[in-house]
Amino acid sequence: MKNLIIASTSTLHNGSYLEYLLSELTIHFENTNEIIFIPFARPSGISHDEYTNKVREAFSKINKTVKGLHEFENPIEAIKNAKGIFTGGGNTFLLVSELYRTKVIDTLEQKLKTGTPYLGTSAGSNICGLTMGTTNDMPIVYPPSFRTLGMVPFNINPHYLDPDNNSTHMGETRETRINEFHKFNPQPVIGLREGSWLDVKGDKITLKGNLTARWFVAGKDPIELEPETNIFEIL
Amino acid sequence: MKNLIIASTSTLHNGSYLEYLLSELTIHFENTNEIIFIPFARPSGISHDEYTNKVREAFSKINKTVKGLHEFENPIEAIKNAKGIFTGGGNTFLLVSELYRTKVIDTLEQKLKTGTPYLGTSAGSNICGLTMGTTNDMPIVYPPSFRTLGMVPFNINPHYLDPDNNSTHMGETRETRINEFHKFNPQPVIGLREGSWLDVKGDKITLKGNLTARWFVAGKDPIELEPETNIFEIL
Repeated sequence: MKNLIIASTSTLHNGSYLEYLLSELTIHFENTNEIIFIPFARPSGISHDEYTNKVREAFSKINKTVKGLHEFENPIEAIKNAKGIFTGGGNTFLLVSELYRTKVIDTLEQKLKTGTPYLGTSAGSNICGLTMGTTNDMPIVYPPSFRTLGMVPFNINPHYLDPDNNSTHMGETRETRINEFHKFNPQPVIGLREGSWLDVKGDKITLKGNLTARWFVAGKDPIELEPETNIFEIL
Repeated sequence: MKNLIIASTSTLHNGSYLEYLLSELTIHFENTNEIIFIPFARPSGISHDEYTNKVREAFSKINKTVKGLHEFENPIEAIKNAKGIFTGGGNTFLLVSELYRTKVIDTLEQKLKTGTPYLGTSAGSNICGLTMGTTNDMPIVYPPSFRTLGMVPFNINPHYLDPDNNSTHMGETRETRINEFHKFNPQPVIGLREGSWLDVKGDKITLKGNLTARWFVAGKDPIELEPETNIFEIL
């Protein structure tokens, strides 16, 4: 039975890293004291060690130890033996490339299906969708595929941003981009605003946090989902 | 001798399609009455015909006829015989995928090297760089490669946006993304603000328009380039 928290962001404005999720994470990871951290997305290009230290500091507040996946000689075995897993944000193209290069991706998919508690934020949430095709990131490296973990039967757009009606900038809005995605891809997309997360328990996928989320289905007008919606029921 | 206009955007706020460039385009395309239009990027997923009609209307103001590349039975021959070429904006992943699928990409590269006048806007400008790795677009389809035309020895970031210091949104700024790009890629990147374009004549690459452009070199602080800078001289 799947057991995942898929969060739009790690950090809220004026908050510290993972702060708004810590009470939730105490419960989510209650059966383990050690978290395996996947640092591959490297926000701003920081090193795997630097990134892992930042995560270690946050998790120490709820008495969890953290080990970076890059510290293991055999990362596939490390994932197989993990009791709790967290994948942080950064660049999704880089994260997905590294998951394929290290051949961790299939093991991670199998592992999460058996119920190991998982936390993803931003890029680490993006990979829980069917593909990474709705990431906001820049394609700084070329991954061997856009296919990702498929932990939910739709795609995820983290850091969802509403159109700014006062903007004079002519670049596409997020909604325009997702509509373009739907010209070529059949799966629904959830736009998760910062502060929202999905709580996945088996087939129950519940929208959490105080905000609504935007739900895009190909060929239909997008709708707003209220917190506590079970998304599995609207599929 | 290359002869290209590489523009950040097709349209300025409160302007009509290509309006701000029309006097420039009269000179740029003075030796041909027919423009071949590459509509593959399909902004908002509009059809090739719809997109070509929009371009036809704009170019009719300077007495040019427009034929969409999708209207030709043999697009490779069409590019070979073209007297002027325009690639419009939309989604860069889609544009690049189609350039590879139709096998037009190599012919287009060879053709532009021989001096056929070319206009690119947005995605159509992005492909003039070494790779599409600094596009802002969503990866809605998976192209066989990120390699693009290499008409300039650097990468292009169109619709360049300065950081909004008042924003509470935690997504990455454009500058952060380009800095991440430079952790994995050696080539410089130009951030072209809306209203700027590059005028490429052989090896002379001149920044045009009223605005400065932002120039990113791996491992260095970005600088602002003044209009009329010959970028070839700072490489």
